[in-house]
Amino acid sequence: MNNFFKVLHKSKKSKARIGEIKTSHGIIKTPSFVAVGTKGTVKALTPELVKQIGTQAAFVNTYHLVTHPGAEIIEKAGGIHKYSRLNMPLMSDSGGFQVFSLAREQRKADIRGEEQPLVVKISDDGVKFRSAFDGKLIEFTPEKSMEYQRKIGADINMAFDECTYYPATHEYAEKAMERTHEWLTQCIKFKEDSSSLKQYLYGVIQGATYKDLRKKSAEFVVSQNTPGVAIGGVSVGESKKEMRDQVKWVADYLPKDRPVHLLGVGQVDDIIDLVKYGIDTFDCVEPTRLARMGVIYQVRGEIDITKNIYKNNLEKVDVDCNCYVCTYFTKSYLHHLFKQREILGYTLATYHNLWTMEKLFERLRDLISKDLV
Amino acid sequence: MNNFFKVLHKSKKSKARIGEIKTSHGIIKTPSFVAVGTKGTVKALTPELVKQIGTQAAFVNTYHLVTHPGAEIIEKAGGIHKYSRLNMPLMSDSGGFQVFSLAREQRKADIRGEEQPLVVKISDDGVKFRSAFDGKLIEFTPEKSMEYQRKIGADINMAFDECTYYPATHEYAEKAMERTHEWLTQCIKFKEDSSSLKQYLYGVIQGATYKDLRKKSAEFVVSQNTPGVAIGGVSVGESKKEMRDQVKWVADYLPKDRPVHLLGVGQVDDIIDLVKYGIDTFDCVEPTRLARMGVIYQVRGEIDITKNIYKNNLEKVDVDCNCYVCTYFTKSYLHHLFKQREILGYTLATYHNLWTMEKLFERLRDLISKDLV
Repeated sequence: MNNFFKVLHKSKKSKARIGEIKTSHGIIKTPSFVAVGTKGTVKALTPELVKQIGTQAAFVNTYHLVTHPGAEIIEKAGGIHKYSRLNMPLMSDSGGFQVFSLAREQRKADIRGEEQPLVVKISDDGVKFRSAFDGKLIEFTPEKSMEYQRKIGADINMAFDECTYYPATHEYAEKAMERTHEWLTQCIKFKEDSSSLKQYLYGVIQGATYKDLRKKSAEFVVSQNTPGVAIGGVSVGESKKEMRDQVKWVADYLPKDRPVHLLGVGQVDDIIDLVKYGIDTFDCVEPTRLARMGVIYQVRGEIDITKNIYKNNLEKVDVDCNCYVCTYFTKSYLHHLFKQREILGYTLATYHNLWTMEKLFERLRDLISKDLV
Repeated sequence: MNNFFKVLHKSKKSKARIGEIKTSHGIIKTPSFVAVGTKGTVKALTPELVKQIGTQAAFVNTYHLVTHPGAEIIEKAGGIHKYSRLNMPLMSDSGGFQVFSLAREQRKADIRGEEQPLVVKISDDGVKFRSAFDGKLIEFTPEKSMEYQRKIGADINMAFDECTYYPATHEYAEKAMERTHEWLTQCIKFKEDSSSLKQYLYGVIQGATYKDLRKKSAEFVVSQNTPGVAIGGVSVGESKKEMRDQVKWVADYLPKDRPVHLLGVGQVDDIIDLVKYGIDTFDCVEPTRLARMGVIYQVRGEIDITKNIYKNNLEKVDVDCNCYVCTYFTKSYLHHLFKQREILGYTLATYHNLWTMEKLFERLRDLISKDLV
């Protein structure tokens, strides 16, 4: 475990720190962005392009992979790294976020009197449902989540958690938090029983928008001594201020010697503040999802490349950037590709946005090393 | 002109030959496949992947590029090679095929009494229409086509031609052919007047499904001494036999010292026969279009990767192939990408199909060099 994470420098100015997460598929220099590769592919990029960008780690979703192609075939292929050729440190989530979203939709449908037979059973054990893809019966419990994640084979796994909907009552949020804690102990036990030495478990702090619950959850989760800790449920509908508050409340409780991941958050304007609270890694769909909509990050702001003003603009895609895309292609060409719905447009935009994230984190690490953040 | 094409070996067994087409953006070893890159991108591939495949040349469509982003901006960017980073020999068509398709749709709409105001004017001079994209008035005449192609800047240009619909009457086909011949002389004159030394013009043989017209057209077009000759209109609805006949009929008239391109044809099962009639280059959407539908070329036949039988198949994509895709990815993974509509699926399938075409032509050149074809 000590070998898993090393703090190389601690800022004198904040809780920000420079570190290294060491996995058998490589090292993540932290703070770091974790590119989203939900279904075992960082959308629109070959694994070689992901490497070329300098992306250090990617995030896959257990729910999606279990639904298709199934954890069994991924295990049989030698794990997700080999199956997808994403040969870098990978994280997987627990599936909790998605299966409880599914359950929530079920409850809403029940209230509306609609039939939605996908969710078969929700209990303190977990969720049982039918795959929307092929009708296969799928169950998510702490043990099942661990087992799926073991088969998928990502380097870092998340404990099964319930991510509460927003807004949740204090009563419900507390119940969900306690369930999450109970599940964490089950996940830890499962990990101890199985000998997946090369996979590292992160406990997940929940507690919704309540300060008392967030603190309680942080204390409990951190006390469990999992190799890493994640903060969950802070990006599901709250305002930016609420989101930052939820991280701020737990900042004092976060482990000094273990890495901290913030689940599903990583908008450019949040990152610096969140790093100051001690966050080491972030996964977020924004750079890649926005890219496919034509939103191109700029060192200064962002632009919508689909706008007609770019049709005849022969400047590089971002005048302040030197990535592959900005070296060889113009705004006009990228605009053309987007207007014509050419696949290459999504590829180039994704490349550039992820590159910009890497550069942002490089600068951030540099600033921390100089105690400027 | 002599410098443009060199025959390196003539088969003793057929009209097949090995040659080299030399352009200022590189050499095409013939016979060769020309990948389709309609809008200035070989769909789903970065220019680097196109190079990595070994693709020797690509084909862009003047009609599409004039409609968007416009020939002017491409010229201003330094030409299509620079604009698209397709830094290899490029061919452009005349736009004739598309604008006459448009005119034909207009006639059908007129007969049905529908309003379709896109086509503004059709005459012996050419076609004037409104862009479906932005309403801009666009005109295609022999001079305009040459001027557009000059601005786009592909290495090889096609003379403006009328590709007759199928089935066309002998009377109509003859009229269209004569118009095409008249336009060829105008295109040649335009080329002489403009000093686009680095662009090579191909006259286009037409004549629909009529042997007498095809021969007459071949004699006329070849006599005009354009740097190359193309055969057009042989893939617009005819049976495979009719298509091959149309090439066979003109085989004896084709130039010995200049390259011959077959427009829009290049299905795997046709290529060997067509090479025997003296065809040097082929452009065809099939390998790339089918790839995006999940049809994966195999050294032996082809497969539909979207079929469920591939979900758990961990064999390489084509067991007889050693391309990048087949080295690193399984049928299961490619199936997964297609079922989940992941962009990477289109990229990998396209890569593999184009690679398979390159290998086919490599083998073909080898067979010709040994007089086995």
